[in-house]
Amino acid sequence: MQTVGIGILGFGTVGAGVVEGLMHNGALLAQRLGVKPVLRGIADLDIETDRGIAVDPDLLTTDAAALIARDDVDIVVELIGGTGVARKLVEQALQLGKPVVTANKKLLAEHGASLYALSEKHQADLYFGASVGGGIPIIRALREGLAGNNILSIQGILNGTCNYILTRMETEGLPFANVLEDAQRLGYAEADPSLDIDGFDTAHKATILASLAYGKPFDLTQVHIEGIGDLARTDVEQAAALGYHIKLLAVIRRDGDAIEIRVAPTLVPQSSLLASVHGVFNAVMVESDLADHTMYYGRGAGRLPTASTVLADIADAARNLTMDAMMRVPAIPPTGESLQVKDIQQILCRYYLRLSVEDQPGVLAQITGLLAKRNISIESFIQKRPDAQGHATLIIVTHEALEANMTAALAAIAELSVVEPPTVRLRIATI
Amino acid sequence: MQTVGIGILGFGTVGAGVVEGLMHNGALLAQRLGVKPVLRGIADLDIETDRGIAVDPDLLTTDAAALIARDDVDIVVELIGGTGVARKLVEQALQLGKPVVTANKKLLAEHGASLYALSEKHQADLYFGASVGGGIPIIRALREGLAGNNILSIQGILNGTCNYILTRMETEGLPFANVLEDAQRLGYAEADPSLDIDGFDTAHKATILASLAYGKPFDLTQVHIEGIGDLARTDVEQAAALGYHIKLLAVIRRDGDAIEIRVAPTLVPQSSLLASVHGVFNAVMVESDLADHTMYYGRGAGRLPTASTVLADIADAARNLTMDAMMRVPAIPPTGESLQVKDIQQILCRYYLRLSVEDQPGVLAQITGLLAKRNISIESFIQKRPDAQGHATLIIVTHEALEANMTAALAAIAELSVVEPPTVRLRIATI
Repeated sequence: MQTVGIGILGFGTVGAGVVEGLMHNGALLAQRLGVKPVLRGIADLDIETDRGIAVDPDLLTTDAAALIARDDVDIVVELIGGTGVARKLVEQALQLGKPVVTANKKLLAEHGASLYALSEKHQADLYFGASVGGGIPIIRALREGLAGNNILSIQGILNGTCNYILTRMETEGLPFANVLEDAQRLGYAEADPSLDIDGFDTAHKATILASLAYGKPFDLTQVHIEGIGDLARTDVEQAAALGYHIKLLAVIRRDGDAIEIRVAPTLVPQSSLLASVHGVFNAVMVESDLADHTMYYGRGAGRLPTASTVLADIADAARNLTMDAMMRVPAIPPTGESLQVKDIQQILCRYYLRLSVEDQPGVLAQITGLLAKRNISIESFIQKRPDAQGHATLIIVTHEALEANMTAALAAIAELSVVEPPTVRLRIATI
Repeated sequence: MQTVGIGILGFGTVGAGVVEGLMHNGALLAQRLGVKPVLRGIADLDIETDRGIAVDPDLLTTDAAALIARDDVDIVVELIGGTGVARKLVEQALQLGKPVVTANKKLLAEHGASLYALSEKHQADLYFGASVGGGIPIIRALREGLAGNNILSIQGILNGTCNYILTRMETEGLPFANVLEDAQRLGYAEADPSLDIDGFDTAHKATILASLAYGKPFDLTQVHIEGIGDLARTDVEQAAALGYHIKLLAVIRRDGDAIEIRVAPTLVPQSSLLASVHGVFNAVMVESDLADHTMYYGRGAGRLPTASTVLADIADAARNLTMDAMMRVPAIPPTGESLQVKDIQQILCRYYLRLSVEDQPGVLAQITGLLAKRNISIESFIQKRPDAQGHATLIIVTHEALEANMTAALAAIAELSVVEPPTVRLRIATI
């Protein structure tokens, strides 16, 4: 059986998972492929720490560049992460015409455009299935499975840490800080959780999905990002009472010649399947013109789920290599259009508002008047009994409104002396 | 731009959908592919009926064999259905070395082995993404996305008609016959609904999924099939009260060197995402060793969703043709194993039982005694107040038991004079 040589860069969690996957399932993969993937080497700065799998020490090297350059390394698997050395090594491999498989969402979100161009220039495949959704074959679905469709929207729960925290906040009625602490202790959240909870990890993934859907690179600067760090338990509870679950949702939506890309804690109707995605699981709901709604669900992280998708990409690259069919599918298939990204103020959305107001006559009229003045109409309204300080809570759900109008209305409302900050504004998903 | 010629066989619902898809999205698909699919002809016995789309009459022909043979037809799309003329035409195309795209589950379930062999012999691609799950790219996920995984189980809601009926039986408390009548009036069920409601359509699809998962053809005779026609409203209600939704579920599960393939109305725990798949939607939950659980959801039928997947297969075949990479992925990638199918009596399962018994002392002891004798232990038990005829209803949920033991126990129970037939036995899904 023909062989392809694999060089792995980065022997961290995912790197060790891929090595384990190749050891356990390499023979199965070879049967399915008709080509045998052979591990030629693993490069890491640290080749001493035990990763819990028995690897021939001769496979380990600290010289990644030399591994990439070896004649018997046909496919380079980048699992280092980040945008420093990883970027240089990916560039080196592509420049040598070697296909690259990577799980590095940050790299693609920040330097995708130049890497896609380099892949094209050197006719070297660039596969990144594991950069979004871990074990879920969502990249493959968008890049190939829905190739005949205009993509109308993509809405995804793309960060397991945040979804775990939000699920526990709701089911156990706990505040954010307590659940985060627990998640850190259980290993579901990093010691520095900001990449996850501030929404950047989700935003990285959103740029990749948008790029695939609309055929051109988007980057992080084009994404409106809000994290879950400020989310109050009371809003999780109020949303649930209104029939919603709050999810850190990536929303990519086309409207004519423009798209919106945003990441924020968002109310998702409980009737939607996406709202039933709990705990560390991820899911992506795609709406497209032919297929209508399709959803993809699974583990968005973890060593073996991520390894599953890396192996599928290795299989693709290996098939292309042995059939002399590299660039069978470009990294980002073009669509012949060039859509612009909307400013967040230009989006249309339904909103959830929570205000704390002094319990006195005329307050409600003032607030609803300021909303009406900006063409914002109210779909439902709840006034809670005043607390001991004489503050009443108002929960307002609006019909669809322009974000700029909502921003202006909230600025005006904030100036009312009867309103106690903070006023909470969350968006409601259309699914 | 390079072109590939498409010949479509069958101008029914799906055929018209594919033509519409090519008309509306052909340019987009060409951009993504770098190859332009050009419709050369549409063959159907009836070329008079208006399909609601404006097609150049010169494209229409009644001579399918001649269309296939044309030099400018590179890819043959079979959407006739059934196992008669469709089989002959698919064979003709493969024998000519032309790639075939088909949505014909019955053909694959009954004659897959010979067609896969013919595809291999003539090195002509055979794509059948639309044969299972309509617009859901589940075939692609199994064939490529999970290529590095051992598949442990596949559980799917694969028939929209049945799921629509079951959803309405539960949400509206209606009996089967009434909902079926309604579904027929609304076009969700055929005039002769037996293919759907007796479970055969689901079984066809189950054989295809099993074949992909385990690398060899399985056929319909190896599937244990029960339909939903005898399902009583009361069982739907009892199941719901116990925390389950009843779904017509295809279950494919590996156990050592054997697999089980079964289709039957099955209790699915409401906590499972699969249980939240309602109405005409389909979903497939796959459990595999690296990716763990992944689920794929969408419209399992309909002209445009099915066309979406047909177009994706056309794209694959077109890429392979233009890159001289046919058979890049075989129809059924081998696994190097040859698993046998278990007799249904050899499976292990939890069961739901409903019995009607005379309300007199000792009855319960007799029944539980007969279960215990076959090593069947009871997980939960409900006895309903007797009706006017003095018959009490017993609802029993068992722990996992061997089907053969359950069959023997129920045979013994049926002989008790205190038991009124019918006794209902339904399986409970492990998800």
